[in-house]
Amino acid sequence: MITFDTHPDRYQHWKLAFDGPIATLSMDVREDAGLSPDYKLKLNSYDLGVDIELADAIQRLRFEHPEVHAVVVTSLKERIFCAGANIMMLRGSSHGAKVNFCKFTNETRLAIEDASASSGLRFLAALNGICAGGGYELALACDEILLVDDGNSAVSLPEAPLLAVLPGTGGLTRVVDKRRVRRDLADFFSTLVEGVKGKRAVEWKLVDRVYPTSQFKEAVQKRVRELAATSDRPSSGPGITLNALNPTVTDTAIKYSAVTLTFHRDKRTADLTIQAPSGPQPSTPDEIVAAGDQFWPLRAFRELDDALLRLRVNEPEIGTVVIRTEGDREAVLAIDATLVEHQSHWLVREIVHFMKRTLKRVDLTARTFFAFIEPGSAFAGSLFELALAADRSYMFHDDAEENVIALSPMNFGPLPMSNGLTRLQTRFLDDDPRIAELQAHDGPFNAGDAEEVGLVTFAPDEIDWDDEVRLAVEARAAFSPDAMTGLEANLRFAGPETMETKIFGRLTAWQNWIFQRPNAVGEKGALKVYGQQGRPEFDWKRT
Amino acid sequence: MITFDTHPDRYQHWKLAFDGPIATLSMDVREDAGLSPDYKLKLNSYDLGVDIELADAIQRLRFEHPEVHAVVVTSLKERIFCAGANIMMLRGSSHGAKVNFCKFTNETRLAIEDASASSGLRFLAALNGICAGGGYELALACDEILLVDDGNSAVSLPEAPLLAVLPGTGGLTRVVDKRRVRRDLADFFSTLVEGVKGKRAVEWKLVDRVYPTSQFKEAVQKRVRELAATSDRPSSGPGITLNALNPTVTDTAIKYSAVTLTFHRDKRTADLTIQAPSGPQPSTPDEIVAAGDQFWPLRAFRELDDALLRLRVNEPEIGTVVIRTEGDREAVLAIDATLVEHQSHWLVREIVHFMKRTLKRVDLTARTFFAFIEPGSAFAGSLFELALAADRSYMFHDDAEENVIALSPMNFGPLPMSNGLTRLQTRFLDDDPRIAELQAHDGPFNAGDAEEVGLVTFAPDEIDWDDEVRLAVEARAAFSPDAMTGLEANLRFAGPETMETKIFGRLTAWQNWIFQRPNAVGEKGALKVYGQQGRPEFDWKRT
Repeated sequence: MITFDTHPDRYQHWKLAFDGPIATLSMDVREDAGLSPDYKLKLNSYDLGVDIELADAIQRLRFEHPEVHAVVVTSLKERIFCAGANIMMLRGSSHGAKVNFCKFTNETRLAIEDASASSGLRFLAALNGICAGGGYELALACDEILLVDDGNSAVSLPEAPLLAVLPGTGGLTRVVDKRRVRRDLADFFSTLVEGVKGKRAVEWKLVDRVYPTSQFKEAVQKRVRELAATSDRPSSGPGITLNALNPTVTDTAIKYSAVTLTFHRDKRTADLTIQAPSGPQPSTPDEIVAAGDQFWPLRAFRELDDALLRLRVNEPEIGTVVIRTEGDREAVLAIDATLVEHQSHWLVREIVHFMKRTLKRVDLTARTFFAFIEPGSAFAGSLFELALAADRSYMFHDDAEENVIALSPMNFGPLPMSNGLTRLQTRFLDDDPRIAELQAHDGPFNAGDAEEVGLVTFAPDEIDWDDEVRLAVEARAAFSPDAMTGLEANLRFAGPETMETKIFGRLTAWQNWIFQRPNAVGEKGALKVYGQQGRPEFDWKRT
Repeated sequence: MITFDTHPDRYQHWKLAFDGPIATLSMDVREDAGLSPDYKLKLNSYDLGVDIELADAIQRLRFEHPEVHAVVVTSLKERIFCAGANIMMLRGSSHGAKVNFCKFTNETRLAIEDASASSGLRFLAALNGICAGGGYELALACDEILLVDDGNSAVSLPEAPLLAVLPGTGGLTRVVDKRRVRRDLADFFSTLVEGVKGKRAVEWKLVDRVYPTSQFKEAVQKRVRELAATSDRPSSGPGITLNALNPTVTDTAIKYSAVTLTFHRDKRTADLTIQAPSGPQPSTPDEIVAAGDQFWPLRAFRELDDALLRLRVNEPEIGTVVIRTEGDREAVLAIDATLVEHQSHWLVREIVHFMKRTLKRVDLTARTFFAFIEPGSAFAGSLFELALAADRSYMFHDDAEENVIALSPMNFGPLPMSNGLTRLQTRFLDDDPRIAELQAHDGPFNAGDAEEVGLVTFAPDEIDWDDEVRLAVEARAAFSPDAMTGLEANLRFAGPETMETKIFGRLTAWQNWIFQRPNAVGEKGALKVYGQQGRPEFDWKRT
């Protein structure tokens, strides 16, 4: 079972060092410490375990080190920055494992970009040596890229020519869309095993600047301090501590403080329940800092995030997840009000963006989500985003009209999807008057009203409820998992596309396709024969 | 060998009837006239042959019938509009054939939308009976959808629940992005084999209006006349005649009047050469109408379009195409000037939009294109778009600097890509000053200048030329065809995404993936066992 809990004290592959407003995150992968003993992580190549540490480091920099304004991403290995994802690991992985590995690395790279865009935490890639494939994709996620000019060090995306697959972590998209590399140069570059170095790498916009070995370290230090000066983070800490979540894990459930994920493996379904806060809650920045990682929205969403990640990698046959919430709706709305009021405070800002990233993780999880809104639920404000993220929502229409949902300012801006729109904007595409009406609405919505204004999919009454929701889940769980994955990936993202949705939609989908093709993974496919005797044999038909 | 030449006199599956400004295009598929005898085209289901006739009809309405302002798309079969793509045909098709079938049907649906958006030719889908899968996707491409309310007729996208594949012709995207169906309702609808009918179909925006059987025909006639009134097409004809292209086809080449496509099957490459016009050219609308389908841009681009389609379906192993042009560069620029000057004339408008669609067909063809710009070439204006559409361009750097390229107003607006940008805008993404400089530039560019301003990829001199271009083609032809397809699909479309690019990028890619998966096409996959005894067996793992 793969878990996502780690800590700098236990990192095996990264070193995190601090120097005032500058942190240095150095890759130094331990060859023999891969998640599986079947491969060696040579030349700073990585597997999911390496990336889990990277994700942890980015997260801790945001919460535990508000005084850090810029991060150097580099390597401790001589003349090697990073050789990318480990090929032997990919070769030995199932299709699903490959896809989920790429999804997580994509989310981690996007978390780096989000840290810069949303929290003023800048990233400088200091490429001290060869930088290939996923290594270059990590660099592409940073704000700027400096490359040593030693006659040897180059950046490259050799996946297509070497392995007959695509760069799996946004490389092609970021090259043309983020760095504005001309598409014909990008085409040439992406078919070049040896990559591009020196002046040409700058001219083609593949890196920002190159420096001779003798000047490299100094140039990195100078530039990272300039980047740090553009940050709006606090000038000093302290931050808060992100303690381990320590859920209770049994064979059928993962139980956290506010989140429970229960598996019904015979039915290929799970129940995901989020508990609203109870008791007095912090309402000022000082109180929130004092509460630290126990402040409900941070605690609940960290638990939700962890549950989603475990579900993805450890429970591949669970296809349908029923989301419920429980507890005090008003308490959620009160916390939303606190978050909105104090969103300029560094910690509140971090919490809101973390909630945003966790909800994006829901959107991007290849499982069906149905929200069941039942009496006693707390689908209000930020928790109602879970119902909006779900593929469908069913709301129990009680005669007493006590089962209600509610919106808050958190539904109208702070928690956008990957497509740049709020979930309400995506739901009511281009229907601005409807959004304005919902925003002007005072108070909760009962089931009839919620169905009427389109906030829930169906609102069966007591007579129909049991059968309708049972049949909906049973029917869903009986469909082809692949067809549902494709269906959801298309229907969830109406409206505009962004670099982020292009990476998860266009690029990921093509990559998943190629990962299935005999030219890559067949007995004579390039990924299979790489590093062994003999050359790949291709079916030459173009599709 | 599949050909794309047809004519209303020879249609087997469609009837085209005219009544003043209204045309009626009626589907009446002949069960026994499929492209292969292996399946029967029951219930107005279709194969590529049916769609080739549809594409021909749309094209002829634009060029041969300018007096037509609106088209009713309906069926001559009782209580059946269209059952969608034929399942037995899909089952028996190779992966490549499925993918190319879907690509062509997508292009045809987009041609319908282009006819409305660009030429004022409106389309009304009159659903006189059941409308499933690809049948509904055809309706979605029309401006409006009317459905008979007979207690039985419904619209549906049953592909996922019935066959474990996705609707392959833009259905999911158009439902949420074009018709603004709410995503949760779209999710429910897309898993419902029986579909949605009557009032609910209207409430969910799946169709525009429903009418009882007794009022249906009249309502269709009334509405299509209202739509016709919004057209800006001429009040009367005549149009021009689109004669058969009649290329000379040998084992190694297809030779048209201005286009030659030569195959080097042992190398998996082809040469595509376009001849510039020679001699006096029409320069007024009257002269252009008189020249008809022999006017060079229409003739050359019709030939190019036909060559691309034949290449796609008949030559799957040709992976790399070298594009060349020959002849009088100034003649191309003169024609571009004529087109731009008279673009408000109905026929000139049709010609320009047809050039646009043909160039999009290049962008969307899953083959590598390299443009070789050699002395004697005519890469100017609209023909230079072919070099911009190519994955790379190589320009011979002659000492005499006589080998030149040139831009025209046709490069700055009239020929946008699927992403809504011109090829120059996509090439120099967000670099408006560069575009302005190029537009202000007077006269041609020699090889050195063209490379300097970024209009070509490489400009080797006489010493390097032969080796460099030979090695480039050889290297490309040796890569995995799948990896190149994915690479090109990602690098060709930097910048914004549109409904069109979402269909070809996100939706198509997911569909290709699903078409490869055992859950669809394995021995026990849903597409394999449909209509036979036994139920599909799924690998339940989600990815």
